[in-house]
Amino acid sequence: MREKDRTRNEKDQAGIIEGRNAVLEALRSGRTIDRLLIQDGCKDGPVQTIRREAARHDTVLDYVSKERLDQISQTGHHQGVIAYAAAYEYATVDEMLEAAREKGEDPFLFLLDNIEDPHNLGAIIRTANLAGAHGVIIPKRRAVGLTATVARTSAGALNYTPVARVTNLGNTIEDLKKEGIWFVCADMGAELMYRQNLTGPIGLVIGNEGEGVSRLVKEKCDFTASIPMKGNIDSLNASVAAGVLAYEIVRQRSFGGTR
Amino acid sequence: MREKDRTRNEKDQAGIIEGRNAVLEALRSGRTIDRLLIQDGCKDGPVQTIRREAARHDTVLDYVSKERLDQISQTGHHQGVIAYAAAYEYATVDEMLEAAREKGEDPFLFLLDNIEDPHNLGAIIRTANLAGAHGVIIPKRRAVGLTATVARTSAGALNYTPVARVTNLGNTIEDLKKEGIWFVCADMGAELMYRQNLTGPIGLVIGNEGEGVSRLVKEKCDFTASIPMKGNIDSLNASVAAGVLAYEIVRQRSFGGTR
Repeated sequence: MREKDRTRNEKDQAGIIEGRNAVLEALRSGRTIDRLLIQDGCKDGPVQTIRREAARHDTVLDYVSKERLDQISQTGHHQGVIAYAAAYEYATVDEMLEAAREKGEDPFLFLLDNIEDPHNLGAIIRTANLAGAHGVIIPKRRAVGLTATVARTSAGALNYTPVARVTNLGNTIEDLKKEGIWFVCADMGAELMYRQNLTGPIGLVIGNEGEGVSRLVKEKCDFTASIPMKGNIDSLNASVAAGVLAYEIVRQRSFGGTR
Repeated sequence: MREKDRTRNEKDQAGIIEGRNAVLEALRSGRTIDRLLIQDGCKDGPVQTIRREAARHDTVLDYVSKERLDQISQTGHHQGVIAYAAAYEYATVDEMLEAAREKGEDPFLFLLDNIEDPHNLGAIIRTANLAGAHGVIIPKRRAVGLTATVARTSAGALNYTPVARVTNLGNTIEDLKKEGIWFVCADMGAELMYRQNLTGPIGLVIGNEGEGVSRLVKEKCDFTASIPMKGNIDSLNASVAAGVLAYEIVRQRSFGGTR
């Protein structure tokens, strides 16, 4: 991600909690923190307390320079600590499987391998809702979380479609395979999506905007599927690609199989 | 469009030409101007010359307040006149038909009824390129033009996929029907896209982000097609919807008809 985009994302409205007391209180109240930033070299008592509390909640923690915190700060009084609170609560993967069971449907999950643009994440959650998916799984690190921009661009879908955050997408795929779910990975060089059987319990894995699905995650998938590319450029926008693949799954599930 | 978004779009990097001489020179040089803004009440000689030149090029002209020009101005010296130059040159609809003929393909065109978000327009041009469409047609008024953001989000597709700008989409549809092209309009209440025959020479009409396809344009279309909606919210993101419909056309054209 370019530095400018990173700063823009970090400034992503609301959800920024600054200062030692405010951050500690947020952690203790159980509020979901997407990411905690602590100033390099800050090791005094109060900061150690915050670190311990963050560890207890398995919060993603990064050490950054004072200049970076100054850039992100909205109040000018960060005291070396800034936390990003999620705009929405995260769900668990088990809750998604339970929702599928309750509806008597085969599970249909989206797994996003490091989507960085909040507009893409919002649009994909919106697509997941309308394609009838039971949830969206994102990684804790190197990806945008449920920021205010994501909530807005999801056009309300975040109120209905659960989003879970996991430490390691590859491990989550391994676990879900034991539940009988098959994983299809969006990949340009692969067999065309029309020729793959995308019915049954399925997880659709979508890659990062620039690099696609990472090798480690791709290796865990059962098969790959590609969108036909007739043009001159390399790839579709990530949320468009997710939509096209998701609706091929919808078509096969509801209107007949491969052809 | 909300006021904030409008200002943001109007500030959309590069392409802003300010001041009487600069604007007049740009018009006379034949540079494509997406939109010309003149300060309310400005009627002196130089401004009249600019108006005449703009009329000669059929340029969209709007009268706005001094405050609005001040907001948009990057130099602070607009002298009551600001022009938006297109980041890319527009093509003609005839050039698109010619390109289809040269390739020996049935024409496949995108028609966008007032897309306002430059990210959506860029993503749609990107999709048009990869779906093998021969061009994208947009209206002159009430829609975003080929700004720098559109060029960037098209990921290079603007170098390959022609974009034409027309005064009236409805009239363009009428003209193209005489060339044997059928028009399908994206519409939520319509027959499912899987059940419509989307093969042959086709124009895909996509509506505005908020309101869908306008009534007047919809009435000109030969038929409507919908994307199945299984969720709780109203609609997909406009560029995702365009992608899903475009790839249903690709599927039917290349991999078999309706089912």
